[in-house]
Amino acid sequence: MPIRGYIFDAYGTLFDVHSVVDAGAAITADPAALSALWRQKQLEYTWLRSLMGRYEDFWAVTESALRFAIRRLDIAASEAQVRGLMDAYLRLASFPDVREALARVSRPRAILSNGAPTMLDAVVRSSGLSSLLDHVLSVDRVRIYKPAAAVYALGPETLGIPAGDLLFVSSNAWDVAGAKAFGYRVAWCNRFDAPAETLGLDADYVVSSLRDLP
Amino acid sequence: MPIRGYIFDAYGTLFDVHSVVDAGAAITADPAALSALWRQKQLEYTWLRSLMGRYEDFWAVTESALRFAIRRLDIAASEAQVRGLMDAYLRLASFPDVREALARVSRPRAILSNGAPTMLDAVVRSSGLSSLLDHVLSVDRVRIYKPAAAVYALGPETLGIPAGDLLFVSSNAWDVAGAKAFGYRVAWCNRFDAPAETLGLDADYVVSSLRDLP
Repeated sequence: MPIRGYIFDAYGTLFDVHSVVDAGAAITADPAALSALWRQKQLEYTWLRSLMGRYEDFWAVTESALRFAIRRLDIAASEAQVRGLMDAYLRLASFPDVREALARVSRPRAILSNGAPTMLDAVVRSSGLSSLLDHVLSVDRVRIYKPAAAVYALGPETLGIPAGDLLFVSSNAWDVAGAKAFGYRVAWCNRFDAPAETLGLDADYVVSSLRDLP
Repeated sequence: MPIRGYIFDAYGTLFDVHSVVDAGAAITADPAALSALWRQKQLEYTWLRSLMGRYEDFWAVTESALRFAIRRLDIAASEAQVRGLMDAYLRLASFPDVREALARVSRPRAILSNGAPTMLDAVVRSSGLSSLLDHVLSVDRVRIYKPAAAVYALGPETLGIPAGDLLFVSSNAWDVAGAKAFGYRVAWCNRFDAPAETLGLDADYVVSSLRDLP
């Protein structure tokens, strides 16, 4: 069966969440540790809030996670510095393979992301990818986070194409599992040679660069 | 209002999950790193499986998490060694303050845990706590993990006492948030001076030892 459309995860797949490291360098000697804990806590809070039925949008979750990470790592940060780090999230760098890969695969092309609509608008615009995308879909419409099925359902609903005819592309191994559980064909873009999750839900394709997507 | 009953989290609160470190020392020079990643992944998989609607019991999740951690840390482990680590989970050490604290607080006293019933039976028996507990409740009855409300509901249902009259006790800060979201009175046993989660759901009491429970 041919692939009739492409759905991309945003954070970690198109946009490098660890590109905030530069903004972190002003407040800590180990900005990579801050970035890693911030990201881990950000994901944890999306899962915990979803299970508790206490949705808050990704901007609020991202800020809560940042404040936790700063406290846990015992970093002294002013309110202006916290705001600076949050603002960096609106201008995350896209990975170097993104533009070429998006241009090459057939339309429709969509983003399906945990991000709040304003965050996604900002980062898509700042990275100059708007014209390459047909849809930017946010979990905010269903008020629960990945890997809940209600999120993945937004893709087929919006594109009018069954999940099994769409290729869902993510660099997040747990997101790969969620998309696979829902019924997508799934490509895992494993840029950094991470081990697969042991969830029994494996990608149909594994590539090390978006340039190698089927 | 007086407290009419006590509900305890098991892993991390009564039983020290990092006491498996000793069993890990045979296969890695850094058993603490193995134990930390094993635990982190174990929790992640409970959250991810719950959100995907793909429940597997805690024994299966714990083994999957262990296999991920071994692979990620590039540890060479035989099947017998994997089995040895899993078996250590059935004989986790209880923290030194547990016995005295359980004996002191009024009945009814219950455990409410992610653990599979056979795992909980084994660890309660091996630690000699059976006679101090009136109920051992497992999420397995509702086939979803903490912090889903359906789990916390097992406490008031079984004890016949409203959540607001029960004290839920956990050392896991995210579990504190879940129990608080459900409506329990909550004590956070923060033995290792961890920072609170920034989820806007704080404990009613914070103690550094179970000996200090109200």
